[in-house]
Amino acid sequence: MDEKIVVIGGGTGISSILRGIKNYSKNISAIVAMTDDGGGSGILRDDLGMLPPGDVRDCLVALANTEPAMEKLFQYRFDTGSLEGQNFGNIFIAALNNIYGNFDAALREIGNVLKITGRVIPVTLENVHLVAKFANGDKCIGESIIPKMCYKLDTEILEVSLFPSIPRANQKAIDAILNADKVLLGPGSLYTSIIPNLVVDGISTALYDTKAEKVYIANAMTQKGETNNYTIRDHIKAIEKHSFKNIIDTCLVNDHEISKDILDKYLDKDKSTRIILEKEDIEFCKNRNIKLIVDDFLEVKDNFIRHSGEKISKRVIDRA
Amino acid sequence: MDEKIVVIGGGTGISSILRGIKNYSKNISAIVAMTDDGGGSGILRDDLGMLPPGDVRDCLVALANTEPAMEKLFQYRFDTGSLEGQNFGNIFIAALNNIYGNFDAALREIGNVLKITGRVIPVTLENVHLVAKFANGDKCIGESIIPKMCYKLDTEILEVSLFPSIPRANQKAIDAILNADKVLLGPGSLYTSIIPNLVVDGISTALYDTKAEKVYIANAMTQKGETNNYTIRDHIKAIEKHSFKNIIDTCLVNDHEISKDILDKYLDKDKSTRIILEKEDIEFCKNRNIKLIVDDFLEVKDNFIRHSGEKISKRVIDRA
Repeated sequence: MDEKIVVIGGGTGISSILRGIKNYSKNISAIVAMTDDGGGSGILRDDLGMLPPGDVRDCLVALANTEPAMEKLFQYRFDTGSLEGQNFGNIFIAALNNIYGNFDAALREIGNVLKITGRVIPVTLENVHLVAKFANGDKCIGESIIPKMCYKLDTEILEVSLFPSIPRANQKAIDAILNADKVLLGPGSLYTSIIPNLVVDGISTALYDTKAEKVYIANAMTQKGETNNYTIRDHIKAIEKHSFKNIIDTCLVNDHEISKDILDKYLDKDKSTRIILEKEDIEFCKNRNIKLIVDDFLEVKDNFIRHSGEKISKRVIDRA
Repeated sequence: MDEKIVVIGGGTGISSILRGIKNYSKNISAIVAMTDDGGGSGILRDDLGMLPPGDVRDCLVALANTEPAMEKLFQYRFDTGSLEGQNFGNIFIAALNNIYGNFDAALREIGNVLKITGRVIPVTLENVHLVAKFANGDKCIGESIIPKMCYKLDTEILEVSLFPSIPRANQKAIDAILNADKVLLGPGSLYTSIIPNLVVDGISTALYDTKAEKVYIANAMTQKGETNNYTIRDHIKAIEKHSFKNIIDTCLVNDHEISKDILDKYLDKDKSTRIILEKEDIEFCKNRNIKLIVDDFLEVKDNFIRHSGEKISKRVIDRA
């Protein structure tokens, strides 16, 4: 029997590792944050009052087992006219969402069309937005604007929450966590992909209650306006703060060398710097009984640093 | 071997009979006019410079062999936001058209997704609009505006043509006609569905050259701004005028009684009246060696009069 794997995050971050994981387990549940409000997802949220489709679309395509043409179609983005900025896969989800009157049912149907391995589960079916409280006292609403605003105000995120209310978790998400063998948190943006899941009512409790091993996949780089100068322990502390308890059993830290060339590009473009495991991180994890696994978990493609689903799966997932 | 059936027309008219024909032959080619510029098709033509997808979509769905949910999805129309008035199937065709850079290839792919019986063939792959010359001397461009304008000006259509130039026919359309056993013209709007095919370069010649029996399915009702007071022979004369020769071998005329109730509704709503076979029509057809088949070819559904694909196929198609 394949291990039951749950991956929690936003779209782009976890979708790249889902492609690797599906070679190691067919029993995958991708739990996806529902706070995206930028780009095509933002347009459809505004227009149709629906949940944001973009991140789930990325996960669905990552788990797909259809011909590449179908994946290409789902990721196709119109670049002119009234459909400009709209993504075909998003429109597909929107049409099914309206026909079925239910986001979850729409995803199930598309899962069938794309013949996906596993399931994609919206963390909540309630329509909420992300709110950030900054260190300077300001507040900001809207996932896509938070990092920009934080950077402009030259401040830091203190905590994030949901508006207009704390939504109940999708029961399927809770069940998946409780029944999992392994839960992978991330990789992805700390405050705008990972934590938006943890502040949904029921998720942190389920993570605390499950017998699954909870593996946090630490980011390799800081993110502008979100985790400037953050260390590994800063990331873990932020997760702990939003889930009220320490929920992490294992932390994967990358030690893959990254060329100066690429690091310079990240610095120039995004003020993004390498996160190196520090002595204090080792101490911190030891105190909290968090197992540290330090290894090469990255792949570099077209000058982009990405976590490798293959390398992570090899270290984390026990094969049947 | 199934008879090779070609159906020529616009979307809505012929799509209802395609549903019937596919039970009688698996070898169907639906040749569709490319002059639609109204509704969602009009938006996409303007936005993306593509060929109009609406009519081909109707035919694709009519020939589909997937579950009803898929057909429902393809016909789904958004009713709010920036996607308002857009039809999902049209957007599907638009995305594939942009990906493949080719309308024909897009239709082939969608045909695969919908598991269609037969093929849907755009009569031309050139981007043209319909032009009407009215009896009062006015001209009007744009398929969707022609009947309205004709009615407003209280005039008649003298002839239609294409702008900016006479396009070459899609070679697949010519081949289908030349290799057919039977060619069905219509049913559908005379000047805005049937004749827009005949004025494409190569179509009339192919119809004249083919050994196939050419069957014209005469409309049961007149159409406001298009065929006011038209008799059967007026319809045939208009076809003859636009194809330069008589191309019709057989003409199906309906004798199904229509209730006064429904006739009143058509009159009230669309100034549309019943077309009855007249003595002069019989004489006219005899002179041109056109075989007349008079029978019940209609079905009435939700107060709408439609041609029945089942009844037409039964009379026209020889079963293997």
